[in-house]
Amino acid sequence: MQFKKSVLLAVLATTTFSAPLWSAESVDLLIKDATVLTMDNSKTLYHHGVVAIKGNKIFAVGDASLAAQFDAKKVLDVQGDIVMPGLINTHTHVSMTVLRSLADDVPDRLHRYIFPLENKLITRDMVRIGANLGNVEMLRGGVTTYADMYYFEDEVAKTVDQIGMRAVLGETVIKFPVADAKNAEEGINYALRFIEEYKDHPRITPAFAPHAPYTNTTEVLQRVAELSKEKNVPVLIHLAESHTEQEKIAERADGKSPVQYMHDIGALNDHLVGAHMILVDDHDIELVKESGMGVAHNMSANIKSAKGVSPALKMYDEGVRIGLGTDGPMSGNNLSTIAEFGQVAKVHKLVNQDRAAMPPIKVIDMATMGAAKALHMEDRVGSLEVGKLADIIVVDTKAPHMVPMYNPYSALVYSAYPSDVRHSIVDGKILMEDKKILTVDEAAIIKEAVEYTQIVRDTVIANGDEVL
Amino acid sequence: MQFKKSVLLAVLATTTFSAPLWSAESVDLLIKDATVLTMDNSKTLYHHGVVAIKGNKIFAVGDASLAAQFDAKKVLDVQGDIVMPGLINTHTHVSMTVLRSLADDVPDRLHRYIFPLENKLITRDMVRIGANLGNVEMLRGGVTTYADMYYFEDEVAKTVDQIGMRAVLGETVIKFPVADAKNAEEGINYALRFIEEYKDHPRITPAFAPHAPYTNTTEVLQRVAELSKEKNVPVLIHLAESHTEQEKIAERADGKSPVQYMHDIGALNDHLVGAHMILVDDHDIELVKESGMGVAHNMSANIKSAKGVSPALKMYDEGVRIGLGTDGPMSGNNLSTIAEFGQVAKVHKLVNQDRAAMPPIKVIDMATMGAAKALHMEDRVGSLEVGKLADIIVVDTKAPHMVPMYNPYSALVYSAYPSDVRHSIVDGKILMEDKKILTVDEAAIIKEAVEYTQIVRDTVIANGDEVL
Ligand SMILES: [Zn+2]
Ligand SMILES: [Zn+2]
Repeated sequence: MQFKKSVLLAVLATTTFSAPLWSAESVDLLIKDATVLTMDNSKTLYHHGVVAIKGNKIFAVGDASLAAQFDAKKVLDVQGDIVMPGLINTHTHVSMTVLRSLADDVPDRLHRYIFPLENKLITRDMVRIGANLGNVEMLRGGVTTYADMYYFEDEVAKTVDQIGMRAVLGETVIKFPVADAKNAEEGINYALRFIEEYKDHPRITPAFAPHAPYTNTTEVLQRVAELSKEKNVPVLIHLAESHTEQEKIAERADGKSPVQYMHDIGALNDHLVGAHMILVDDHDIELVKESGMGVAHNMSANIKSAKGVSPALKMYDEGVRIGLGTDGPMSGNNLSTIAEFGQVAKVHKLVNQDRAAMPPIKVIDMATMGAAKALHMEDRVGSLEVGKLADIIVVDTKAPHMVPMYNPYSALVYSAYPSDVRHSIVDGKILMEDKKILTVDEAAIIKEAVEYTQIVRDTVIANGDEVL
Repeated sequence: MQFKKSVLLAVLATTTFSAPLWSAESVDLLIKDATVLTMDNSKTLYHHGVVAIKGNKIFAVGDASLAAQFDAKKVLDVQGDIVMPGLINTHTHVSMTVLRSLADDVPDRLHRYIFPLENKLITRDMVRIGANLGNVEMLRGGVTTYADMYYFEDEVAKTVDQIGMRAVLGETVIKFPVADAKNAEEGINYALRFIEEYKDHPRITPAFAPHAPYTNTTEVLQRVAELSKEKNVPVLIHLAESHTEQEKIAERADGKSPVQYMHDIGALNDHLVGAHMILVDDHDIELVKESGMGVAHNMSANIKSAKGVSPALKMYDEGVRIGLGTDGPMSGNNLSTIAEFGQVAKVHKLVNQDRAAMPPIKVIDMATMGAAKALHMEDRVGSLEVGKLADIIVVDTKAPHMVPMYNPYSALVYSAYPSDVRHSIVDGKILMEDKKILTVDEAAIIKEAVEYTQIVRDTVIANGDEVL
C-alpha cells in the first residue's frame, strides 16, 4: 500500500539517470562536489558527485561530469561534504520537548508521572510550543520527515506546514479521558476531522494513532483499522513495547502475543506502523513481514528505559519494513536520528556478540530507505533518485571529529553529531542553509519554550512531584 | 599515591570558600551567571553562580552574590550556561585519529589489521599529525586532560605543550618490535628518557604504558612496576579486556585471571591505571579496590567491538577509582567523553534491567572526579573547588536540543553533543573561546591530517587490504 499515489510523477517511469546532453538544462538548485550517498538499491556512491533539483523533485544524480549540463538558479558547492537523503524519524511525540529532562529515572514513569502530568498540562498552546521547538531541533539534526503521535495533532500540522518539513501526523485514540477527547470514540472523530482537513496537503499525511493495543478495546482497534482502509491513511501505534502490555493482551486474548492479537483481530496490515516491537518472537516477525506493516525502531529510548533491545536487525535482515525513530524527547531525549546511529550499531553488535553484525551502511539504510518503507513512503522519499521528492541534507565533514573520512558511512554512524548537518532541503526548498533556519524565527520559538517551562514546573509541583 | 604533590598550594588547606569581603579582590578571570556543577563531594550546584580564577587556580566558587567581590581582568557572562570541571578522558591513543573510520568491522582487527598497519605506518610525523588532530577534537569536545598510550610519546608531549592541555602520556612497552623500540627493554629505556625529559612539566605527566599483560613478560611487568615507584609515575595498561588475554594469562599463570595475576606478581598498585576491565569478577573487583589502582571505562569502544560491558557501575558503587575514557579513535571513533555519556547511562540501565540504575549525576561524576581519581589526580583537577587547578568548560544550553533544562545532569547525559562546548579553560588559560581555538592553527592541523591520509591509503593497499 502506498499513500498518496496520485502525487507520483511520470518521470519515475523513465530510466534515464541524467539530463539530456544537447543543451544546458535549467534547474533550480545544483549541489556539486559532494560525497553523494544515494541510498538507492545498489547503494550507489559518487565522489565529487552532483545532485540537480527542479521544482520539488530530484532531476539528476551522478558524477562530476553532470554539473556542466545544467544552468542552475542556485549552486551549493559543498566541497566534499556528505549529501544524502533527508533523515526520516519514524516515531516521536514532538510536543513533549517542553518536558525534556524531567524525571528521567522515575520507575513506572508513564503511568505514575507522565499521564498525570499530561492530564493537566496538554493544551493547544503546549502542543504548538513543543512542536515548534522539536521541529527546529529536527531540522538542525537532518530530519526532514517525521511520524508523530500526540493530541491536538492539527496544531502540530500547522507548525509543520509553516517550517516546511514533511510529516505523518497521528491523532491519538485512547480509552482514557485526555485533553482533546473524553474517550476513544471522540478521539476517532477528532482524527476523522483532522484527516478531512489535511488529506490533500502536499507534505502532511494525517493518520490515526491508537496509543497501544492495551489502552484501547478490540472494537476500537478494529474500527480504526477499517477507517484507515476507507480513508487510505496510516495507523501509528505503540506495539510489543512492554511487559505490562504483553500481560494485559495475554489476559484479554487467551495468552496471545500483542502481534498475534493484532493479526487475529484484523488490524495487522500495510497501513500500520508499530513503534518499538521489542517483545516479538520469530513467529511474530513472520506475521509482521507478511502483513507489510512498518516498524519504528527506537534504540535509545528503549535502552534508556531498560525495556530491552528489539530484534530490529533480524527484522531488517528478513526484509521487514523497518526504520529508525527517536521516540518522544522525554524517552530518547533527542529528536535527530543521528544521535541514534552509533547506539543502534553498537548495541546490536553487543547483543549479537559480533563486531561485524551491523555495518554502518545498514544503520544509514534504516535511517533513510528503511524508514521510508516503514512509513510506506518509499516511492517518494528515502533515497536520492531521479523523480523522487527533493528531501536532501548536507553533512559537514570538515570538523576535526569527522576527519579523516575513509568510509563515509562509518563517519556518519560512529563520529557525526546532529549539529554537523549544514543544509536541509525539503520538497526542493532550502529550509536551513549554513546552519541558519530560514522559514521560522528560531530565537522566538526557543524563547517561548523557555517561558513555558514555568507552567510545567508549577504543574509538576501541583501534582506533588519534584522538579528533578 | 598522588603524583606531583609538590605542585599543591597551601591554599588547599584553607577552609574559606570565598574571597575576603573587605575589598574588591583582583582576579584574572570571572565566570558569572552560570549553572555551576561543582562536582565536589556534596555535588553542590549553583544557579546564576560564579567562578573566579587567579593565575592557574580556582580562587572562589559560589552564588551570584560573589561577583561583586571581584575586580576581574576578564569576565565571561555565560547567561545560564553550564560551567563544570573540564572532562578527563582516562584512556586513548590520540595519534590514531589519522586511521579513524578504517576497517571498523574487520574481525580479529587488532592482530590482523591494526598491528601490521601500524608496523609500517608509525613515524614521528604520524604521531605528531594524529595528536594535533585529536587534541583539537578533544578541546572542542570539552576534554581538558587525557591519558594516552602510544609510541614516540615525546611527540605527543610537544603537541600537548603547544595547545596548552593537560595529559598523562604513557610510552608503550611491548615484547614485539615496534616503531620506536625493538623490544620491551628498549621500550623501557625510551620511557625512562621521556620521563626524565618531562618529569617537571607543569601540565604533562610522563608514564610507562606496558601494552597489556599478555603482550609483555612477567619480568617486564615487574620491572615497570618497580621503576614506576622509583620514578613516581603512573603505569597505563590494557587489562582484562579480551578473551585472548584471559586465555593467555590463564596458561601462563595456573588459570589465574589477569587481575589476580597482576596482583600476584606485585604489579597491581596505586600507580596503575587499567583500561577496559571488562572480564573481572567480584574477587577481582576486591583486589582492584584494595590496590588503589585506577580504572578507565570505555563503553563505546567496548560495545562497538562487541567485547562486552564492564561491571563499571558496580566498581563505581563499591568505591573503585573509575572514570570514563574513549579508547583510541579507531576503537571508539570519538575522543570527547560527551559522546559516551548517553551510552554509558543507557547500556548500564539495559544490562541491569533497571531504568534507575544509573542516574545522570553518576555519569558526570565518572567523567570528572571519577576520572581524576582514576588517574590519581583528584587533589588537583576533577571538581570546581577553591585551590584546585582552573580546568573548566562552559557548555552552551541555548540550542534547541538542550531546551528546556529542568535537570542539567540529564541535559548533559541525554541531550548534549560534544560540539555544545563553548569555552575551554586549562590551567587558568582560555584555550577555546566561543568555539574558536586560540593556541594552535586548527585549519593547518586539519589540512595536514587530510594530506596524510594518502600515505595511510597507500600503506593499507600495500598490506593487501582494502581501504574501507
Ligand atoms: Zn512513543
Ligand atoms: Zn586502548
